[in-house]
Amino acid sequence: MTFLTRSTLRLRATSRFPVAARTLATSPHLRAAAKPYFADEPSAPKVVTAIPGPKNKAATAELDKVFDVRSLNMLTDYSKSIGNYIADLDGNVLLDVYAQIASIPVGYNNPHLRQVASSPEMVTSLINRPALGNFPSADWAHVLNTGILKVAPKGLDQVFTAMAGSDANETAYKAAFMYYRQQQRGGPQAEFTAEEVETTMNNQSPGSPQLSILSFRSAFHGRLFGSLSTTRSKAIHKMDIPAFDWPQAPFPSLKYPLEEHAQENAQEEQRCLQEVERLIKEFHNPVAAVVVEPIQSEGGDNHASPSFFQGLRDITKRNNVLFIVDEVQTGVGATGKFWAHDHWNLQTPPDIVTFSKKAQTAGYYYGNPALRPNKPYRQFNTWMGDPARALIFRGIIEEIERLSLVENTAATGEYLFAGLERLAKQYPEHLQNLRGKGQGTFIAWDTPKRDEFLAKAKGVGVNIGGSGVSAVRLRPMLIFQKHHADILLESVEKIIKQL
Amino acid sequence: MTFLTRSTLRLRATSRFPVAARTLATSPHLRAAAKPYFADEPSAPKVVTAIPGPKNKAATAELDKVFDVRSLNMLTDYSKSIGNYIADLDGNVLLDVYAQIASIPVGYNNPHLRQVASSPEMVTSLINRPALGNFPSADWAHVLNTGILKVAPKGLDQVFTAMAGSDANETAYKAAFMYYRQQQRGGPQAEFTAEEVETTMNNQSPGSPQLSILSFRSAFHGRLFGSLSTTRSKAIHKMDIPAFDWPQAPFPSLKYPLEEHAQENAQEEQRCLQEVERLIKEFHNPVAAVVVEPIQSEGGDNHASPSFFQGLRDITKRNNVLFIVDEVQTGVGATGKFWAHDHWNLQTPPDIVTFSKKAQTAGYYYGNPALRPNKPYRQFNTWMGDPARALIFRGIIEEIERLSLVENTAATGEYLFAGLERLAKQYPEHLQNLRGKGQGTFIAWDTPKRDEFLAKAKGVGVNIGGSGVSAVRLRPMLIFQKHHADILLESVEKIIKQL
Repeated sequence: MTFLTRSTLRLRATSRFPVAARTLATSPHLRAAAKPYFADEPSAPKVVTAIPGPKNKAATAELDKVFDVRSLNMLTDYSKSIGNYIADLDGNVLLDVYAQIASIPVGYNNPHLRQVASSPEMVTSLINRPALGNFPSADWAHVLNTGILKVAPKGLDQVFTAMAGSDANETAYKAAFMYYRQQQRGGPQAEFTAEEVETTMNNQSPGSPQLSILSFRSAFHGRLFGSLSTTRSKAIHKMDIPAFDWPQAPFPSLKYPLEEHAQENAQEEQRCLQEVERLIKEFHNPVAAVVVEPIQSEGGDNHASPSFFQGLRDITKRNNVLFIVDEVQTGVGATGKFWAHDHWNLQTPPDIVTFSKKAQTAGYYYGNPALRPNKPYRQFNTWMGDPARALIFRGIIEEIERLSLVENTAATGEYLFAGLERLAKQYPEHLQNLRGKGQGTFIAWDTPKRDEFLAKAKGVGVNIGGSGVSAVRLRPMLIFQKHHADILLESVEKIIKQL
Repeated sequence: MTFLTRSTLRLRATSRFPVAARTLATSPHLRAAAKPYFADEPSAPKVVTAIPGPKNKAATAELDKVFDVRSLNMLTDYSKSIGNYIADLDGNVLLDVYAQIASIPVGYNNPHLRQVASSPEMVTSLINRPALGNFPSADWAHVLNTGILKVAPKGLDQVFTAMAGSDANETAYKAAFMYYRQQQRGGPQAEFTAEEVETTMNNQSPGSPQLSILSFRSAFHGRLFGSLSTTRSKAIHKMDIPAFDWPQAPFPSLKYPLEEHAQENAQEEQRCLQEVERLIKEFHNPVAAVVVEPIQSEGGDNHASPSFFQGLRDITKRNNVLFIVDEVQTGVGATGKFWAHDHWNLQTPPDIVTFSKKAQTAGYYYGNPALRPNKPYRQFNTWMGDPARALIFRGIIEEIERLSLVENTAATGEYLFAGLERLAKQYPEHLQNLRGKGQGTFIAWDTPKRDEFLAKAKGVGVNIGGSGVSAVRLRPMLIFQKHHADILLESVEKIIKQL
């Protein structure tokens, strides 16, 4: 077994996605990618029954006996789903631009992932699950270096592995709190006081300090107790669950089209930045970190400019609090760069970047060695992720590289956005605040009859999700191509005509 | 596909483990099980280098560059590990009675699990990961009914699936809080007030109410923010992390041997129960649920009697708070019953039972339909578990049934405990408070030089873990047999002689 050094990997990572999205639309590379990635993918959706059809209804009733099905969207026949197309039990096959809540990157039944999933390495990972902090497999460094860490954000070369987005964020918050207190104590050598040891066993300060994480209005960072305390998307996500007294700052509310509201939007972003800094300085529970999504997703697809995020980085630096970027939904290519924060051109990287969803595994990246807690077993749990899922992420990365899927997403997104702009001119009342230009396929718009729009989508052969109260959000896979975009654009128009 | 009804399954589950542990030691069934389960398992440990040896040291240094290794116990060669034996890179092969922190049930490289992991069903689960709440696979009900729910605790026929122990407990807490507030509101039809909707977005009461979960001193329920607020095991687990102001009750501190301290122990348990009831009635943040481990594991292997737990059930019923049993470490056979709370003979089942570790997947069981929150998307997240891991649990259940591994564990535990009693008489200073009689192989004792004991164990060919400050905890797999117990007993004696 050979171990690649970090610097080698960094070079590779840098050279892998060298071409800016804008230039790709006309590159020879891209024209080649216009061939379908899945030779046996359907050429169009197929709708043969009302949805849900009789078989789906019957199977749903069966599942309801033991499992809450009230959030069920569609019982799925994964054996018949392929590429960008999702199948149900009644023979309906839909173009899927929701993709398991933005978490399928390289298509249903991807042949390369099938190979990975059938490999002897996968079998041993599944049947010999390690307690990763205690008994990692001998090749764990290799699996990390050729997978999760190969695509580590620039400047961040360490990882703590986790299970899903919520615990990725919460372990990141824990790292931030431990770091904050370590700085207060004067460094990693300082021992805990007897009072700290005693009070933390009673959940009281100073051992369990009343520190906070600052998040933004409409943010979504997960649903466990710590992450939910930073989630501000919808009341239904939070109701009845005790929460920490943590601050929220306003997130910029931009006006569209951006080019017509440049000055107004810049002022709005300044206002929000000032409020972030005020809260950091004044909030009664001191702020250890600021957490932000590059594009607020569950909260309604809310964007801000690179200069807003540069401003956040500056403020967090200046005030010595950590800057955590939650790339759970934006990461792994969907915005036309591997990480959405690659769009910002930061002078210094974020302190922590969290990931999940399209990675099919989860965790947080960091670079500063001081973010490793000063003693073992402070950041620890039994499984600390799942090597089987880490192997899947490695397969996904291989597939992304082989097919240049980040570049594909940038180019397809540009094409799709242009088509939606045309529709927005034609149907201005149904396509408002179109957003996500230059952000790959991470596109959304507002529409007054949003829920009706989503409900009618299946009837025309498309599976689409929403976000916030009025947004239609597109979250196609990275294998979404121009011919899929054409079908989607036609479908959107069909739905609008039915409204 | 056929769907089994819940009542059929319940009958099967009841008839599967019909024989009490005590009678099994002499049953013909058991004698048959004395054949090794793994034909190619080593007959004894093999120690060929100091541990860690040179190859393990070098590989650990490599891993340290990208992954915190300070909690590392032993970098493992899983390809060479088999059955009860764990291998390192230097050719050392140890009898493993720690089993990935109590989470490997049916042995390393179990042939049946290998089949499960190589099946087409597994491959599709790995490469088409669903958002289970939205797009479960068409066979999800079948996977649940033939796996997770087939072994559901008596009286609990519903499941919410999760990723690991911490989020299993936290989602259970969320269910408890939502249920508590629903009762206060007068039922599932009552709508949230405008004030609740507004306040919860600010993390304030009444929308985010200051309710609590009562746990016990020395308890361990996980390390995310909600679960950590109920964890009271060690300061290092909790230090610097904000926590909720939730109450803790004393857990009984029993004296051993039990038969010599019956009256004293009964009084101690009464004292603790009274304090639980007092806290429920008086604590300033109202208690929505009591959570308890059947045997406190990380906290030092602390036991209590069935009558203590019956008392807890009575108190929680009487005070209308939920009773959550955390079977993350005790569940799936290790105590000689499938669920440790099966030892208690409760008149009414717990409200919620959580599981993880040996299940290789996680979640919580419940029975009362009112514990499904009154609206969809209140208890929800993207993945809600992992069907691939649910298939592994099903394979584990099949293997447990095929080999009668719960009965094996009851009988081997009895044999092992008797051997340890003999050693305790011989070395009373090194084997104190021996506990776990009648609890399968879930056995522990205190020893003044605990850390030295654990460190020397590898040298004699055994991998053992500790719990609390002074306990040696045994957590062998369910395939641990009498001939393994003989090796372990000899090894314990060898270690003691070196101290």
